[in-house]
Amino acid sequence: MTEPTPAFARATDAHELEEGTVLAPRFDANGLITCVAVDAATNEILMLAHMNAEALSLTMATGEAHYYSRSRKALWKKGETSGHTQKVSEIRIDCDQDAVIIKVTMGGTGAACHTGRRSCFYRTIPLGAPASADTKLAFTGDEPRFDPKAVYGKHEH
Amino acid sequence: MTEPTPAFARATDAHELEEGTVLAPRFDANGLITCVAVDAATNEILMLAHMNAEALSLTMATGEAHYYSRSRKALWKKGETSGHTQKVSEIRIDCDQDAVIIKVTMGGTGAACHTGRRSCFYRTIPLGAPASADTKLAFTGDEPRFDPKAVYGKHEH
Repeated sequence: MTEPTPAFARATDAHELEEGTVLAPRFDANGLITCVAVDAATNEILMLAHMNAEALSLTMATGEAHYYSRSRKALWKKGETSGHTQKVSEIRIDCDQDAVIIKVTMGGTGAACHTGRRSCFYRTIPLGAPASADTKLAFTGDEPRFDPKAVYGKHEH
Repeated sequence: MTEPTPAFARATDAHELEEGTVLAPRFDANGLITCVAVDAATNEILMLAHMNAEALSLTMATGEAHYYSRSRKALWKKGETSGHTQKVSEIRIDCDQDAVIIKVTMGGTGAACHTGRRSCFYRTIPLGAPASADTKLAFTGDEPRFDPKAVYGKHEH
C-alpha cells in the first residue's frame, strides 16, 4: 500500500481524550497501538496485535483487519497469505485511546492464530502459586485447524 | 510489596515457545507484557493494562489482579484505591508468550475503568471511511457507575 499516512487529531487534555468524541489515538514511540481481535458472535479473544496509523485507517475504511508486523516491519492485511481474513463489524477504543478492540468474523477455517488454532490464547497459566522456572502451562483443547507449514512460507503473525 | 523478582524460564526456540508447556513469558524492553482483563461470565473485555514479572507472579499466587502502572512506575493491585478488585479465575497466555488474558469477576460496582464505566472500551470508531482529524467517536451507553473524582485522589489506571 502506498497511501499517505492519515492525519489524526490530537487530544489537548485528559478530559478530552477520555470523555470526548474526537478520535485522537495515542500511538506509542514506535507509532503503534495495541489491537485485540475478538469473535463478533461470542466475544472470544482471538489474537492481540498492533496497528500503526495506516493499518488503523485501512481497517476503518475497508472493514478488513490490517495490522503492522513488528517482526517484519510491514503493514499486514490479515489473511493475505493464509486466507484467514477478519471482517470487522465494530471497532472500539479505550479510555486513554492507546488500545482498540475489533469485533471480527473470521474467514478460512476460522483459525486466527498462525499456529493453526482458533485463538492465540490456547494455553493456561496455573493459579495458586507464584511463578517459577518450573511453572507448567496447560493446553485448552483448541486444536490446530490447518498445518502452518503448508500455509506459510514464514511466520505471518 | 518487597518480594524478590520471580525467576521465569526462557524458551530456547520458537517451537518450544509456541508448542511447549513451559511458562516463558517474553517481557518487553521495559520488562512488561500486555494483559487483557475480560469478564469471566460474559467474555466482555473490561480493560487492557501491563504486568511486570512481579505483577504476573502475584496475580498467579493470589488470584487477585496485579498490574504495573507505566505512568506511576509502580506495582498496582487493582482495586486497592477504589475497591474495584478483580478476582482471577483463569489466566491464558498467547502463542508467542508476550500477552496474557485474565478472566475476572469484578468487585465494587463492577466498573473496571477509572472513568467509572464497566469497560474502558466505551466508545466506537466509525467504519466505512479512512481516518481523518474529524473522525468522531460514538459512546456505547456504558454509563459511569461511580464518580471518579470522589474515589481517586489521582488517576489509578
